[in-house]
Amino acid sequence: MASLEDMAVSAFINILSAFAFLLAFAALRVQPINSRVYYPKQYINGSRSSPRGFSTGVLRFVNFNIWSYVVSFFSWVPEAVQMSQAEIIHHAGLDSAIYLRIYILGLKIFAPLTISALLILIPVNVSSGTLLGLKKEIVFSDIDKLSISNVSPGSERFWVHLCMAYIFTIWTCFMLYKEYDNVAFMRLHFLASQHRRVEQFTVVVRNVPQISGHSIAESVDHFFQKNHPDHYLSHQAVYNANKFDKLVRYKERLQNWMDYYELKFERNPEKRPTTKIGFLGLWGERADSIDYYRQRINVLDKRIASERQKILKDSKAILPVAFVTFDSRWGAAVCAQTQQSKNPTLWLTDWAPEPRDVYWKNLAIPFVSLSIRKLIISITLFALIFFYMIPITFVQSLANLEGLEKVAPFLKPIIELKLIKSVLQGFLPGLALKIFLYILPTVLMIMSKLEGYFSLSMLERRASAKYYYFMLVNVFLGSIIAGTAFEQLYSFLHQSPTEIPRTIGVSIPMKATFFITYIMVDGWAGVAAEILRLKPLVIYHLKNMFIVKTDRDREKAMDPGSIGLPENLPNLQLYFLLGLVYAVITPILLPFVLVFFIFAFLVYRYQIINVYNQEYESGGAFWPHVHSRIIGSLLISQLLLLGLLSTKKAAHSTPLLIILPVLTIWFHKYCKSRFEPAFRKYPLEEAMEKDTMEKTCEPGLNLKAYLADAYLHPILQMSEDIEVGEIRVDKSKTRSSPQRTEPISTSPPNYVSHYSSSPHYHQYDYYDDDDSSSPPHYVYPHVI
Amino acid sequence: MASLEDMAVSAFINILSAFAFLLAFAALRVQPINSRVYYPKQYINGSRSSPRGFSTGVLRFVNFNIWSYVVSFFSWVPEAVQMSQAEIIHHAGLDSAIYLRIYILGLKIFAPLTISALLILIPVNVSSGTLLGLKKEIVFSDIDKLSISNVSPGSERFWVHLCMAYIFTIWTCFMLYKEYDNVAFMRLHFLASQHRRVEQFTVVVRNVPQISGHSIAESVDHFFQKNHPDHYLSHQAVYNANKFDKLVRYKERLQNWMDYYELKFERNPEKRPTTKIGFLGLWGERADSIDYYRQRINVLDKRIASERQKILKDSKAILPVAFVTFDSRWGAAVCAQTQQSKNPTLWLTDWAPEPRDVYWKNLAIPFVSLSIRKLIISITLFALIFFYMIPITFVQSLANLEGLEKVAPFLKPIIELKLIKSVLQGFLPGLALKIFLYILPTVLMIMSKLEGYFSLSMLERRASAKYYYFMLVNVFLGSIIAGTAFEQLYSFLHQSPTEIPRTIGVSIPMKATFFITYIMVDGWAGVAAEILRLKPLVIYHLKNMFIVKTDRDREKAMDPGSIGLPENLPNLQLYFLLGLVYAVITPILLPFVLVFFIFAFLVYRYQIINVYNQEYESGGAFWPHVHSRIIGSLLISQLLLLGLLSTKKAAHSTPLLIILPVLTIWFHKYCKSRFEPAFRKYPLEEAMEKDTMEKTCEPGLNLKAYLADAYLHPILQMSEDIEVGEIRVDKSKTRSSPQRTEPISTSPPNYVSHYSSSPHYHQYDYYDDDDSSSPPHYVYPHVI
Repeated sequence: MASLEDMAVSAFINILSAFAFLLAFAALRVQPINSRVYYPKQYINGSRSSPRGFSTGVLRFVNFNIWSYVVSFFSWVPEAVQMSQAEIIHHAGLDSAIYLRIYILGLKIFAPLTISALLILIPVNVSSGTLLGLKKEIVFSDIDKLSISNVSPGSERFWVHLCMAYIFTIWTCFMLYKEYDNVAFMRLHFLASQHRRVEQFTVVVRNVPQISGHSIAESVDHFFQKNHPDHYLSHQAVYNANKFDKLVRYKERLQNWMDYYELKFERNPEKRPTTKIGFLGLWGERADSIDYYRQRINVLDKRIASERQKILKDSKAILPVAFVTFDSRWGAAVCAQTQQSKNPTLWLTDWAPEPRDVYWKNLAIPFVSLSIRKLIISITLFALIFFYMIPITFVQSLANLEGLEKVAPFLKPIIELKLIKSVLQGFLPGLALKIFLYILPTVLMIMSKLEGYFSLSMLERRASAKYYYFMLVNVFLGSIIAGTAFEQLYSFLHQSPTEIPRTIGVSIPMKATFFITYIMVDGWAGVAAEILRLKPLVIYHLKNMFIVKTDRDREKAMDPGSIGLPENLPNLQLYFLLGLVYAVITPILLPFVLVFFIFAFLVYRYQIINVYNQEYESGGAFWPHVHSRIIGSLLISQLLLLGLLSTKKAAHSTPLLIILPVLTIWFHKYCKSRFEPAFRKYPLEEAMEKDTMEKTCEPGLNLKAYLADAYLHPILQMSEDIEVGEIRVDKSKTRSSPQRTEPISTSPPNYVSHYSSSPHYHQYDYYDDDDSSSPPHYVYPHVI
Repeated sequence: MASLEDMAVSAFINILSAFAFLLAFAALRVQPINSRVYYPKQYINGSRSSPRGFSTGVLRFVNFNIWSYVVSFFSWVPEAVQMSQAEIIHHAGLDSAIYLRIYILGLKIFAPLTISALLILIPVNVSSGTLLGLKKEIVFSDIDKLSISNVSPGSERFWVHLCMAYIFTIWTCFMLYKEYDNVAFMRLHFLASQHRRVEQFTVVVRNVPQISGHSIAESVDHFFQKNHPDHYLSHQAVYNANKFDKLVRYKERLQNWMDYYELKFERNPEKRPTTKIGFLGLWGERADSIDYYRQRINVLDKRIASERQKILKDSKAILPVAFVTFDSRWGAAVCAQTQQSKNPTLWLTDWAPEPRDVYWKNLAIPFVSLSIRKLIISITLFALIFFYMIPITFVQSLANLEGLEKVAPFLKPIIELKLIKSVLQGFLPGLALKIFLYILPTVLMIMSKLEGYFSLSMLERRASAKYYYFMLVNVFLGSIIAGTAFEQLYSFLHQSPTEIPRTIGVSIPMKATFFITYIMVDGWAGVAAEILRLKPLVIYHLKNMFIVKTDRDREKAMDPGSIGLPENLPNLQLYFLLGLVYAVITPILLPFVLVFFIFAFLVYRYQIINVYNQEYESGGAFWPHVHSRIIGSLLISQLLLLGLLSTKKAAHSTPLLIILPVLTIWFHKYCKSRFEPAFRKYPLEEAMEKDTMEKTCEPGLNLKAYLADAYLHPILQMSEDIEVGEIRVDKSKTRSSPQRTEPISTSPPNYVSHYSSSPHYHQYDYYDDDDSSSPPHYVYPHVI
């Protein structure tokens, strides 16, 4: 266990590295060459264009203005806080704004907790001084003098801790309630003030039954005309477009090559570029590149067009899923919230996610398969959490030097070098674990996809939940009780329910120093590294050097992605857990958590303004998860305190702690019924209000044209787009449609750009008077 | 532990007493004087009228036909099975028919289980013979030779038990699935084939907000006209009618007295009866009774009428609840299943229960109060289950002879008599427990009422759930592990999760003989006692002797009540639990369970045909509970088998058992999503079909008149009824409206009589062509 001096050293190192990261950030971000890494959001918005326009020569790449470095170091904080919340919503969407509110919630919870804990609990703990007497026998860290361990067993002072536990719980619940209320209001307000959106009129219907003699389209039409006669408008079939997808991707690549050669020819007009037309361009006849690619693209275009026609006409390519559109929000709200069919496994209706939020591959999973997938994935997740060390240990046992020498004998001379040998011996065993932890979020996302959720936002939430459980067991519990998760599971199964919180509770104060170090490394230096964006910076420049051939490629390379909820949410929730668990036990940990929340809030606010580009808008649908995880942390902290106090012979005060979890669970249930419907359902009152407003403002609105093709598979839509040759180049700037086919990896910015660039978009106004306000880009005239 | 001989003696005694009960039943039910006890359902139906019409003299009371006694003893079984299921639904409603299907499910599950267990498991157990060698040390019962205890630890024979556990689980799940499917189909079919019912068009709206300047009625009208413009018809306010209620009850009593004196005068026309008009009729002037009561009723009538007007006009008497009616089933289905308001705690909509199923007192509980009530009741229930022995022990310690002598010194000489003293000393301590167990169902029902459910069917289901938990902990676990529930709780908290099933599992085979005896006493003799109806018989005759003055009183006295789901369901579920737990461990218990299911099925079928009168029709809404409790029993049986095998050193086979509970839970989840919506929601497809059908068949239907006043508080309705003086007597025969005010205790038979007596009612026909088919009795012309 570390002494206070050790802690100070650790703090010094971490603050220093955080400072270094910030310095590097200040230096790097003023270089014009890096601006696409540090301000990608501004490029997407169009508020910043290619830096090469401004200056020439080396100035295009490097900044020599010393003053700007100084400004840069200090100015990011004002830059981060200058935007108001309303502006953030406008700029980056509600999801990002609500994500930032998690940090604010952390501040609101932990600032008063820190102050009261420092003022009350630490004096109580220090003045008790049992440990001072025991010092000779057991080496306690100095931090333990500030913790509950310093209070002698059976002391009446535990009443103070009991009261503080009550006050902390009440305060946390109060803040949680207020914040839930606030977020629910923000969401409702956002939905109410939104402009007309296709998903407001659309419901996704899954498990459409196959009726012999009727096509899917016919049965959908028939069913909804019969059961929603007053409001049913039309529907959009979902096509199985795998083959088509491949063709389009192939054409993408060819197109890119052609662009490259055109650019090359433009810059060097004397020499027309040529290409070998054989295998992979490595051998064969030479041909004029531009002509060659143009010709191949033309051939492919015809194939694509015929394939497209085939898909749209072939009834077998239609999946038993449909996007059903209604003539009013009321009609859609009714259809989404009711049961349609007598057989509850058919005609399942749900709110349609936004078009860019749809995960197309999972739409057509049948009901039984879905149920089996969930079973298998939950068993797998359980195994992954508790037994992940088994395959890693196995790999580690293989990945030793002898094994490597056997597999690759030619490496033997190098490996046998003493220096390299010792490095490898220290490095290899950890490598398997590092790789595992690095790919874990991806693995969890794949698991969520296999589970069958059909919107990206839902997938991210599920992956985030899985990651949280992993962290809870393997980081939190795993650090407190030494040993693998599997060993913990085994010991928990063989301990009594009252014994478990006691075992954990007792070792909690001893691990305080570890967690303080963890917070400084991960929460201070780690967050500073986040703003530096070292990895994207390196990758961007590498790509720029080796891969980027055209502007389209550069746009792809600079794509900042979204905040990364699946990883960031669980991380954040871990800080809440640490803060709440240690609030009563070792209050000295609280200031560290508080510093994390302040610093991370500023960094992420800055990043959201300048870097990240949210892929979809879920309207803060993740908040109920945040709320319930914090409640879960509260419960864990209460049980552990109970366990700890029961070993401290505080017989008078301990039983009173049992009431706390009961009240907390009740509070959670109350909040759930009070606020959660705002995130899961769409009230008819609201729908009717917006409908009426719309009818009076825009009486001649052609909704059918507005909604047509909105939910056509993006790849089919895109090809339409390409067919209209002359506007292709314009559009590719704002749309960069290709990414649509892989919705997770990159974010097509069309939606956001529509929001932010449209001059007609007034925030919190119900309607634009101007009827010409541009509709979202994916609305096209009816072609099919 | 009992030997096989002891068991045989016990079986003999129980079979004998069951036989004696059946004999007594055969003898008593042929007595005309008892016919109102044994055939109340036939009186309610009108298929049997007062027995006094048939014969004269003593024959009116006693049956001297010997042959009829012999027939009576044998004929009840054919009488019980003669009706088809469709006839039962027609005769007693779907709830009763589905209740009987629980017994059929028991038979379907346990008949094959019994045969396979007897043929395979018992030979395996007997031939193992470890216990024979140990016999000198521990006295095992002979039954243990047939059980799993007889297999030596570590034997490979446990594979047989493992396989049987799998086969039993799969079979049970298969049967559960088929039965759930069947019951869901019956329910949907029943709903589809039902005649027009008011509840199909009605939604109950709770938590109507108080808007200043508007009455509740205005805001309801405004809200629904705005948000359901196409389908909203009107609404029925709910009145706070406490004072009115009292007046009406008082009038009831006066009316009854007048009837009594009129009858007296009719029989003895010479002498007009007189009454003292002072306090309680004990002193004061004498007056002519009939005139006196008529005059008082007239006075009261005026007060009632004015009070009624006052309530209907006073906006303060309107509670923030309303029954909202729609012009179509589709509109009601939409409103019931969607969220109305932006604030999810306001305008809560739910399906309206049938008018006779409404528990009026709980309609107006606010949202927050409901949430707090649930918390308090669940804590209370927990305390009741685990600590109920504490107050009883306390009462027992008070209720000894010394205490009694102190309280009532005049009893001393009697108590001091030796005989009486010993009887009292043996009797008194048990008395408190007996009284507690006797009033327990009532207590649980009161708790459910306090919890705030607003339909009788829901209240019964909740009370039944509470009773089941009580039985599970205190009867099942309490018998297996000696000691009070509190002691169990304490020991469970201090044992590890793997230890608990082991502790219980080990003692399970030892308790087999106890449970076999329990089944014989409660399941064989107890069921025979059920058909004898000794308590209602005695109460009926006592009432007839002392209380009954008029025909109305007699009708009240003979009221058979409903089946008593709150007590019978948990009892039945206990048999499922016992059967499933012992199926692998001590299979010899299975035949006893099987006999119970056969016998109880016959008895309850007979009782449903002849005695019970279901108060409401919930369409089998309790089935999901039955299903999930049986799944729960399966899980318990699997965990206990796991615990038992883990002590038997069957290291190879035990781990494979862990898969079973996982699969069972998955099966439950699947069934829940597959079938439960059929019990909780109303598919729009169905609603639309019935609406369309109705529109084509009855184009001129005046729905508004049909629905008007259907959900007026019964007491307000009834008084209207009484005002229409001349038809009062006719109606009282079929309606017996007074009971309406206490919906739990008695059942107004109007609804059922409407079904069964109406010649226009064709089962499973969608519509009666005849428009004149009588509407339910509570539809009256618009008065308010």
